Order: sequence, then structure tokens, then C-alpha cells
Amino acid sequence: MKPFYRKALMTLTAVGIGMGAAAEAWSAESLDDVMKRRSLTQKDVLAAAKTYVPTGKRDEFIAFSSGGQSGQVIVYGIPSMRILKYVAVFTPEPWQGYGYDDESKAVLAQGRVDGKDILFGDTHHPAISETNGVYDGQYLFINDKNNPRIAVVDLHDFETKQIVVNPIMKSEHGGAFVSPNTDWVIEAAQYAAPFRGSGYVPLSQFNEKYRGAVTYWKFDRKKGRINEAESFSIEMPPYSQDLSDFGKGPSDGWSFTNSFCSERYVGGIERGRPPFEAGCSQKDTDFLHVVNWKKAHELVKAGKATKINGHNVLTMDVSAKEGILFLIPEPKSPHGVDVSPDGKFLIVSGKLDTHASVYSFDKIQKLIAAKDFAGKDPYGLPILDLKKSLHLQLSVGLGPLHTQYDSKPCVVYTSIYVDSLVTKWNYCEGKILDKLPVHYNIGHLMTMEGDSVEPQGKYLVSLNKLAIDRFNPVGPLHPQNHQLIDISGDKMQLLYDMPVPLGEPHYAVAIRADRLKPGVRYKSGTNSRTNARSKYRTRPGREKVERKDGVVHVYGTAIRSHLTPEIIEVVEGETVSVHITNLERAEDETHGFAISGTNVNLSLEPGKTASSTFVADKAGVYPYYCTEFCSALHLEMQGYLLVKPKGYKEVSAKFSEGQAYTEADYKKQVENNVATQGVINSVVAFITARNFKDFPIVVALVEDATDQLGFAAESKKKSEDFAVKKDWQNATLWGQQWFQYQVKTADLGLRAKTHLEENGAKVVEKKK
Amino acid sequence: MKPFYRKALMTLTAVGIGMGAAAEAWSAESLDDVMKRRSLTQKDVLAAAKTYVPTGKRDEFIAFSSGGQSGQVIVYGIPSMRILKYVAVFTPEPWQGYGYDDESKAVLAQGRVDGKDILFGDTHHPAISETNGVYDGQYLFINDKNNPRIAVVDLHDFETKQIVVNPIMKSEHGGAFVSPNTDWVIEAAQYAAPFRGSGYVPLSQFNEKYRGAVTYWKFDRKKGRINEAESFSIEMPPYSQDLSDFGKGPSDGWSFTNSFCSERYVGGIERGRPPFEAGCSQKDTDFLHVVNWKKAHELVKAGKATKINGHNVLTMDVSAKEGILFLIPEPKSPHGVDVSPDGKFLIVSGKLDTHASVYSFDKIQKLIAAKDFAGKDPYGLPILDLKKSLHLQLSVGLGPLHTQYDSKPCVVYTSIYVDSLVTKWNYCEGKILDKLPVHYNIGHLMTMEGDSVEPQGKYLVSLNKLAIDRFNPVGPLHPQNHQLIDISGDKMQLLYDMPVPLGEPHYAVAIRADRLKPGVRYKSGTNSRTNARSKYRTRPGREKVERKDGVVHVYGTAIRSHLTPEIIEVVEGETVSVHITNLERAEDETHGFAISGTNVNLSLEPGKTASSTFVADKAGVYPYYCTEFCSALHLEMQGYLLVKPKGYKEVSAKFSEGQAYTEADYKKQVENNVATQGVINSVVAFITARNFKDFPIVVALVEDATDQLGFAAESKKKSEDFAVKKDWQNATLWGQQWFQYQVKTADLGLRAKTHLEENGAKVVEKKK
Repeated sequence: MKPFYRKALMTLTAVGIGMGAAAEAWSAESLDDVMKRRSLTQKDVLAAAKTYVPTGKRDEFIAFSSGGQSGQVIVYGIPSMRILKYVAVFTPEPWQGYGYDDESKAVLAQGRVDGKDILFGDTHHPAISETNGVYDGQYLFINDKNNPRIAVVDLHDFETKQIVVNPIMKSEHGGAFVSPNTDWVIEAAQYAAPFRGSGYVPLSQFNEKYRGAVTYWKFDRKKGRINEAESFSIEMPPYSQDLSDFGKGPSDGWSFTNSFCSERYVGGIERGRPPFEAGCSQKDTDFLHVVNWKKAHELVKAGKATKINGHNVLTMDVSAKEGILFLIPEPKSPHGVDVSPDGKFLIVSGKLDTHASVYSFDKIQKLIAAKDFAGKDPYGLPILDLKKSLHLQLSVGLGPLHTQYDSKPCVVYTSIYVDSLVTKWNYCEGKILDKLPVHYNIGHLMTMEGDSVEPQGKYLVSLNKLAIDRFNPVGPLHPQNHQLIDISGDKMQLLYDMPVPLGEPHYAVAIRADRLKPGVRYKSGTNSRTNARSKYRTRPGREKVERKDGVVHVYGTAIRSHLTPEIIEVVEGETVSVHITNLERAEDETHGFAISGTNVNLSLEPGKTASSTFVADKAGVYPYYCTEFCSALHLEMQGYLLVKPKGYKEVSAKFSEGQAYTEADYKKQVENNVATQGVINSVVAFITARNFKDFPIVVALVEDATDQLGFAAESKKKSEDFAVKKDWQNATLWGQQWFQYQVKTADLGLRAKTHLEENGAKVVEKKK
Repeated sequence: MKPFYRKALMTLTAVGIGMGAAAEAWSAESLDDVMKRRSLTQKDVLAAAKTYVPTGKRDEFIAFSSGGQSGQVIVYGIPSMRILKYVAVFTPEPWQGYGYDDESKAVLAQGRVDGKDILFGDTHHPAISETNGVYDGQYLFINDKNNPRIAVVDLHDFETKQIVVNPIMKSEHGGAFVSPNTDWVIEAAQYAAPFRGSGYVPLSQFNEKYRGAVTYWKFDRKKGRINEAESFSIEMPPYSQDLSDFGKGPSDGWSFTNSFCSERYVGGIERGRPPFEAGCSQKDTDFLHVVNWKKAHELVKAGKATKINGHNVLTMDVSAKEGILFLIPEPKSPHGVDVSPDGKFLIVSGKLDTHASVYSFDKIQKLIAAKDFAGKDPYGLPILDLKKSLHLQLSVGLGPLHTQYDSKPCVVYTSIYVDSLVTKWNYCEGKILDKLPVHYNIGHLMTMEGDSVEPQGKYLVSLNKLAIDRFNPVGPLHPQNHQLIDISGDKMQLLYDMPVPLGEPHYAVAIRADRLKPGVRYKSGTNSRTNARSKYRTRPGREKVERKDGVVHVYGTAIRSHLTPEIIEVVEGETVSVHITNLERAEDETHGFAISGTNVNLSLEPGKTASSTFVADKAGVYPYYCTEFCSALHLEMQGYLLVKPKGYKEVSAKFSEGQAYTEADYKKQVENNVATQGVINSVVAFITARNFKDFPIVVALVEDATDQLGFAAESKKKSEDFAVKKDWQNATLWGQQWFQYQVKTADLGLRAKTHLEENGAKVVEKKK
């Protein structure tokens, strides 16, 4: 049937795909018809038009959302609300090979707690790196609430590069937030506990020995890694610290942290004590912690810190004495302290209150300078007067939770938990501007770059915690619901309900898409987790198997459409370390590698080298294959791991051929290939006659096609050499391989041709 | 600040949320403005209107897509293409607690291969259960290619209930497909290998000892589980079997399986042999395997099977002798054999060819009956003549891959890999009807219920393997692209590009949404993986800690907003088994449970009991908490695991109180609560004055609110009892707890009230 294939290829090439006209045919239905049939209002159509992103077009903003207990980060586009990626962070994820290849296992191993593998995280607060307070799109930081850890994701390749474990805390919530130049990342404790390593301390000593803390992680921008040795912490009272934020502009050098159980209450409903929820919500106010972290850093450098588990900690005594930690009452159980873009104000609201409170950084500074304190807490920390610290308070609704900034001066949005509302208000003048009902129950909300010095306005996302009846039912465990809201006008307009299918996002951040510059390939042979060349990288033709220090190292490669080696032979009981380099340079030409009967599972993006080490503990035959649909010959991208019993004596190494080929087969194959080359030549002529160099995508395709054609030439030579020796078996099969590379070339050529046709390429005159 | 809270509550209740008008305010922009600003064509707006699903509305179809190497199943709505859930199947997933709680660990343990935990899968082909050939929405089956396994997902709760491991194969692809009444599920081998348990067999014996197979799993519909003992397999030649399908109607009792390397070629590029891709694509045809499985089942019952690893296998000798397995040539390297809705035809197309071939079941039967064979294969299996078996062949494009059926008679759609097209054609008459370019490169495609006897037409999804430049870049690893196509008219219309953010889907199936009837809660105390009451279920007030057989069993509960117990005390080295029952009945009121420093992580949907067993190996203090944002007091839903050193002598068990309360505090609390009760009463009056019983959602909310109010009454009594004893500490805190239940009641009442207002509830006359 091969002639048909070739003939069709020729026809298509000659006349173009010719489907353009058919594709442009209009629907039989008009917009009115569709609106009637689908019961859409004009408002629905407007919302649809504001969110729909046509094929090939891009979203305007990219959101990074925590994935809650999934332990991952969710990446989605705004306004289309299409999820683009789940980035594996604290939980193994096989599609990405994360936690399956040796390189990423090393990252997860950094996150071990007391030597124990913790195989999930509860991600809460993502933060994008900033330069001068503006999102720069280089790194993403994300925390784990259950085990106080921070991970660093490189936005060049959207991979997790580092995990650090907090050396003193047992629990956290208030991280990650970054300083205006991302030289520091904050992580604040949540549930008070004795510092790590203190062993058991009875709850009767809660007030005396249980502690909160805030850690300031030093981020090395050049290395793109947190420097644990230069990081430090500040001891805090056991007030159940919560969210944090860094100051900026006039408040740069300061940071702010909420708390929600300054009652220091310990529940025990099973022993007749009122539960935590009662005791932790009794007082009308909790404490906002105001920290002079730049001064704290100076104190650490001056040797005033205490070493706990090798980590520098400033005790409360030092803080009280040196004046680096101040408390201000804040409305009950707040969630979120948000510094204004100009750094002059911070907005806090209490979940069990109706007010948003706008604190004035200037007033706070004046109170501190004047030592005008309202009192001291039981730990000797100075308390500032609430009213004297306030710019203003405004009643915004029942259960205000979190506030985000608009691009318009003085305009903010606060999520209202109990009322399920977003309240738009003016924080300079204390005026309600608008209210929009959202679905139950809103937690955090997010505006575009709303955490930065340059909020972008336009959209707001309401992160609702319950979906209930919003979507088609999928069993007792529901998705969450992120609602997109248009904030460009005076009135907010609900645009879109987006189900979150995996994980329970807590908070998200969104960046202008044009600030992100991710790569599409690695330098050949890269260990993506260290960004360095892998010592196991392998160049084509240099594949080998090497036994060293008791390990069988397989240096392999992957390229459309074969793995090398295709047969791996080891002896039962041997430790095997397979290292595969993806030789592709073409965008999106990812290969995978999995071996049956094992947990070997690699994701190999173009240029990546990944490894998997395992013990071949049972004699037998184990097929392996490429797990990513990479070409028409994808299923044939396979091989066998042969595990021989110890002392096994091979009977015959000669393969039994299932099919024998003759001179006639060879000639038929060559005839076919020569004709196919004619087709390829005509595609090449079409492309080179046009201004293809003006189309980067086509340039990449042509480069890839040229590679494939080079491979075809190599196979052609092999085929011809065997034909000279009258080895028709090998001559025919290498002839087939030559054809397979031709098909890949043609596939790429057709893609390039289509792209040129669809994008108005012009015929250019040939240089003489 | 509490008075503000109450006052606001009262105001809102009195006047309604009052935001209706604001919410209806029109955008300042017209549709034309939006089109201009966003560069949308009229066609784009039409596509947007055809796919947009407004808030609260539902999708028409639900798709279940394999998740590839993620090992999961992806659930999304059509036409909105919003992902609703990832169902954890072969890979641990912490959001769902899958592989973290003891109950789901038991399911994953069923999937052990040779006693080894395999912690991922490569899911390929989902199948929905059928009754008389019609999708019934009860179960979903999904296979693992890398380790030949089939999982059963119950669509009542979208949870994985069972995993079975193939007893003889090492690799598979052609599963899962179901018989018309889902009494059988098919699983076909892929890469040939010696049967499991045969140990090492050299590749020189490939033709003699490497084998394919097809397994017929017996599904017990009453139990909803595969019955492994009654299942059987048929040995196949080492032809690299591929996809399968069951016959229906006239072809019921028969099944069909493709193959792609009937050359029986073994590569070895590293030793100078042409690679698999060359040797496996040399011949022009492969073999379609036609199986009389009903007769095969009779033979098994008659004792003609050979036991291999305790499993019944019909050898090729028996098949040849008894006439149950026939081969027909099929165009090179096909992927997909698809039986027509009436069961009369099967369509196959070769990826390395241009044809779709329509086989006639009737012609095949006549050839078999007449013993009109074209020859025998090397294993003695009869071969039918290709042309004599065909209804017709049609050239549909370069690299045709998979065909799906429309609701319109004789109309089908074939995915064209190399051309990146969908070809619409008439398989009765052999006529091309339309072609639509899709993005690179289409693998499978799916129509609505296209596998069943009642295809639903309307939509088609093109499962493209590369996204390349379709979406905002997210690093070297790209999403896949599922394109939604409108097939309701004569011409296909591309509607939507959907990125797949996690996993590489291979195939998908879609069902009419109204055929699914998932539940929202479990009977209280259910082990969701067995569907039985858990022996660890706990009723409210019966929480306890019990030491038995060397294990500390904690029988706990979760309800808004506390965990019971709030303090768990154990001794270093003890094995602890925590069992938590979620006492909620309200839809979407999921709680979670995680303990710092451990991998304890439970997802507790309403009614579920889940357990986690671990060794408390290090003395210390470990906070635990609810991981799902469940109420305003979510952060306060916490507790402590205290691990005491062996032989530790407690100094004092008395809690040190962080805050002391007086009679004045108590009185203030009571005053607040009494006023709040007034608010609640007015909400109740509003609701009961309306026809709320006509609104099921409101009925559920009222039921939940009534529960919460009952809890409030209990706390009120405790508070008053302590007041009598002048224990102001406990009186105040229980008073606070009483208030917290009031807030939960009010929250629910407000939701109910809003729902009634928004949905036109009417005032009803009170019965006298």
C-alpha cells in the first residue's frame, strides 16, 4: 500500500491541503439561533466574548495558584481560565517524571523532615519574584503548610529546583512572600509548637515553651537558590501567626504578620474543654506583628542571634530590647495583611468582624519613634494603640478576608466570606464603590499583579472554597470554583466560573504573560534540576553500557522514533542506572521512558538527560517503550530489558528473523524512497521560494526537517552498503529506515508549508 | 467588634443582600467593542457562544480521558471543556487522600506486580459501562499500558475501587473495552514477551516463546468488581497486538484486535541491527485478530484451557483446532478497530497508509463458515482474504488512525495523523464528506457516545498530541491540546482549543451528562473503597482512644469546625491508627486531616471514614489540622499529637490558660448570642414564609442549619450550666461556641434566603 501513501503525499504537496475554504465555511446557525438554543442572555454572550481565546491566540495573564493538598502549583491563563500546567512541587508526579527520575528525587530528598520522606505538601501561598517591586517572571516560591517548607520553581522551565525545610517550625501558613528585590522570602509559623528538636513538651507549658516564628530566607538571585546558611528567624509568641507581607517603598525593610489565636487557647473537647474554635475566637482582636527585619538582619550579623539547630534565631528578649518587633491589635482572626503599592498603607480585615482596617505605616513609625506604646504583651513586646495606628476603618461586609489592589489609585477589592461577596472600595477615603455576589464561599481573591508596586487592574479572580451545585456533579468530592470578574469598569462583572479539578487552591498570583520568557529546550544533556550538564549525558553514536562500582550504567538516547540501546542485558541482582538523553531540539518533542514491572518512568523534554536507578531483582523479560506520542512510529519506539539468571549460559545470541527480505523487496523499497524524495524536494522548493525566514516557527521546523533528512542520508548509505554485499535483509530494512526518516521530514515540511500558507508568506526572488 | 458583626447581620437580613441590581449592571462595552478590542471575528464569537456555559448552568456531555503517564483519569465537561476532576487511579494523589489513607492503599496494593508497589500507571483506554450497548454511567474501566492492569472506577463517587493485574502479560494497550452488557472487559497485550513467570527467555527464541494474548475479564455487575477467577485469556502470536473492540448486535460474541508488528521484528540498533521502527513497518499489512470469544468461554468451561499462574489460557493450538481465532490482513500499523453501532461493520485504518478499510462482519462470517481461508500463519491460525472480507476501502488521508461514529447513519470521522486532519466520510458508500485541519498531530478522536449503539452526534474532540505554539508557553514540557469540533452541520466547525495541563491523554470517552447520577454523601461511617460501613466508623460523642493488639486506635470525628479528639497522646514507638469520620451531611462539606511531620493526609467527604496508620517514632509535638477550607473557623480546626518519650512522667496535666474570663465577659457573650438568635429567627421566618420545599438545595441547607442550631443549643446548655457554678471561664467559652454555631446557622440561612430570592420563591400562606 505504500504507493498510495506516496501518491497522496505528492497530491497534497502539489495542490496544498486545500481545506482552507471548507474550514472557513460558516455555521448554519446564527448567533441569535445559538443564544436561543442554549438559553444565553446578551450578558452571557458578552462574558463569552470577553473570555474566549481563539485557536492559536494567547492569554493576557498567567495565574499561579497553590494546589492545596495536591502539593502542586496550578498554572492557568486569564481570561480564558484554561489550565496550562500542574507543576509538581512536593508530591511525586509521573507525567513530569517528578519523584521518579533520580534527578528530581534529589530535590524531593531536600524536603525530608527528620530524615523522613514526606510525599505530599499542602501548598498555600505562591509568590512571583520581583525586581524593584515589579514582577519579573523569573522564579516562583511556594510553601507547604503541613510541613514548613518552601520550594523554588524556575519559570524558565517551570520545574521545581529546590526545597528547604524550616529548621525550627512545625507548621506554617504565612509564606511565601518576597521582598521588593527578592533577596528575602518570608515564612511565618502557624500552630505554635516547641521548636524543632525540643522533643516532647506538655501543653501545660504552652505559654512558656510553645512558640511561633517568622523565618527570613536569603535568596541568592544569581544562583536562583535559597541560601540556608544566611537565613534567620525571629522568635514569636504562641499567637498562631498567619499571613505576612513585605513592606515596599517607604516601608521597605519592614514586614507584617497576622495572627488569629492571640488568646493562646488550647482546646480539648474530648476532655470537656471548649474546642479551639471557641477559645481562639473569644477576644475581639488579635495581634498584627510589625517587624523591622532589616535591623533584625543587622543584629544577626552583629552576633545577637541564638543558634537553634544551627540556624540563627533572634529571641523575643532580643527583639523587645532592640526594638524590632511590635504588636498592634487587629480585628479578630484576620487573614491577609496587604501592603499598598506605594508602601504607605496596610490593609487588614478580621474574618469574624465586618471591618477592613487601613493602617498607616507613617503613623506606626511615628508611634514607634516616640515610644508611644499602649502597653506590653506577656512576653514584653510593645503594643501600639489600634486607633492611633489607623488611617481609617470601613464596614465592608460579613467576614472580610483578604484585600487586593487595583491599578486605579485608592481602589481595592475585599473578599467577604460569610456574605459571599466581593466589595470594591476606596481605601483613601473609606467609601464603598460596588459589591458583587460570588459563589460560596470566597476565600482569597487576586487581582493581576495585585501584590506588586504596579497592579495591572482588568481582572479579579474570586477563589471560592465550595462549588456545591455550580458544575456537573462528580461525586462527593467537588472541585473548587475560581470566578473571573471584569474590574475594568465602575461595576464589577462576573465573567466565568472555572472548576479546579485537582487540589484545593488557597491563594494565587497572576503575572502579565509578556513578562514570562520560558525556554522550549535544554542544552543537550542537561540535568534540569541542577541546570548543569549531566555527567550522564550521551551524544548520538556514543551510547554504551558500562559496569562501574557495582552499578550497570546505561548511557542511552531517545530520538524520533527509537531508543538506543534497544536491548539491555543485565544479570539478576544487579543495580541498573539508566540515563537517557533526549537528542531532539524540536519544540514539544518530548519522549518518555518506562520499563514494565518497575517504577522506572522518565519524562524527557528536548535536551534533557534523566536517570533512573533500580535493582533488577528478578530474572525475566521486561519491555520498555517511549511513553509520549512523539511520531507516527511512536508505538515502535520500544526495547527489551533482559534480566538473566546468575550464571546463565546463552544458547544462541542470533535473532530468529520473523520475516525474510529479498532483492525484490529492496528494489521496491528504493523505488519508493526515490519517489518520496521527489515529494520532499517539491516541499523544499515551495518553502525556500517564500520568505520563510520571517517565520521563527518555520525556521525551527526547517532546521528539524534538515536533521531528519541527514538521518535519512545515513540510513540510505547503510542500505546501499548492505546491498553491495547482497545482504538484502539489512539492505531492505535500512531502506525502510531511510523511508521512515523521509516521512518525518515530509511531516515537518507539510507543517511548515501549512504555516506559511495560513500566515500570508510571500514569494521571494531568488538571489542571483 | 462583635456588635458590628451582629448589626451587619441584622441589616442584611432585613433588606436582603440588595446587590441584585448592581450585579445586573451592564458592561460599559458593547459586543462590537469587545470584538474590536480583542480582535475577535464573528466566527470566534459564534464559537464562544457555542461553548460558554454561564454560572450555575451545566455541560451537556462529560468526557473521561485517560491521563497517560499521570496514571489518572481526567473528567471534563463538553462543550465548555472545563476540567471537573482528576480521578486518582494508579498513582497516589494526596488531595483525594488516594494512596495516603489505609483504605485506598489497599486498592493500590491490589495492583502490586510481583509483590512490588508500582506507583504510577500509563492509562490509555477508558470505557464506560453499557447496558444493551448503551452507556449506563455506572462504571468506568481504565487500563495501564506499562504494567498490564485494569482499574474499576465507580461513577457513583468517582473513586477507584479495584485494580487487577494481568496474570500472564508484561505489557498491554488494547483495553479497556466492554461487551454490550459489561459482563466482560477486554485487555490485549502489546509488546510480546514470555508469559509472566517464565523467567528469562533469550530473544533468539522470540518467534517460539514470546507471545501476545487477549484477556477477557469477567465483570460482576452486582458487586461492581472484576471476578478474576472466572476470567480467561487467549494466547496470541507475537504480533504486537494493539487496540480491540467488542462486537454488538449481529457481531455480539465476537471481538477484534489489531496488531502492528506482525513482522515479528526484533531491533537492536546498538548492535548494528536496523531499529524496531524499520523492521516493524516493512510489510504492507498487519493482522486483524477476529475472536469468537463466546465459543472460547464455552471451551474454558469445558476444561480446554491450560492453567498458567492459576489463570485459564486457551493456547493457539486449541484456538486453531476449535476455530476461535482468525486473522485478516489489515493496512500497515493500524490503531483502532471500531465496530459500527449496528454491529455489521468494523473500520480499521493503517497509520502508515492512506486508507480506511470497512470490513463486513457478514462476509467474514461467511468466509469462516465456508472455511474459505487464504492460508495459515506460522502458528497454524487461519488467514482470511483481505479483499473478500471488505465492504469497501477509501483513501481518507495521510496516516489515518482512528474512526468514530456519528448519530447520522453511515457517517464517521477518521483522525489523520500526518496530515493533521479530521476526515468526515460515509462508510456505507465510501464517500468523503468534509475535511477539517486540526492542530498537530491528531491521535485518537472521540464523538459523543461514539463507541455505543447510540452515538449522540453533536460534538467531536480531536486529541492532539502536540500543542507547540497553541498556548502560552510553560516551559519545555507542553500541555496536550484537545480541540472541540461542532459536527451538528454538514461542515465541521472548530470551536475550542483545550490545553491538558497534567498527563498525556491517549483516548477518551464521553457520555450524556444526564446519564450520570453521582452521589454527594456517603452513609455515615462508610469505607468508600469497599462501599461497606467501616469498622472504625465513629458516631458523635463516641470518640475514643483504644489500645489493642499493639496499636493505638484513635476513633475520631470531624465537623464544622473542630476535630475530636483535639489532643492525642501516645508514647514514642507506638503504632498509631487514626480513624476519622466526617459527620457532615451537607453537600461539599469535605474536611481533611493532616499531621505535621508525617505522611498522614486524609480527604474526608461527608459521611466517609478514612484511616491512617503510622509509627510515632520520635518524641515531640505535632500539630494537626483540617486541610479543607470548610468554614470561617477552618484555621481553628486544629489539634496536637503529643508523642511522649518512653517512661515520661507528666509534671502537670493542667492547661495554662492564656486568657482569663469574668462574669462580665460571660454576660456580654450571652447578650450577643440572644441578639444573634433574633437575627436567625428573622431568617427562619423569611424562609418558612416561602415555598422553600420546592427548592431541594434550600431544603438541604435548612436541614444543615437545623443541625447547626441543635449544636448551638447543646453549647448553650453547657454554658448555662457552668454559669450556675460560677465557672466564668467555661461559661464564656461555651457561650462563644454557642455563638459559633449560630454563625454557621446564619451562614446557611443567608445562602438559603439568597437562593430563594434569586429563584423566584413565592410567599405561601401559613396553614392554620
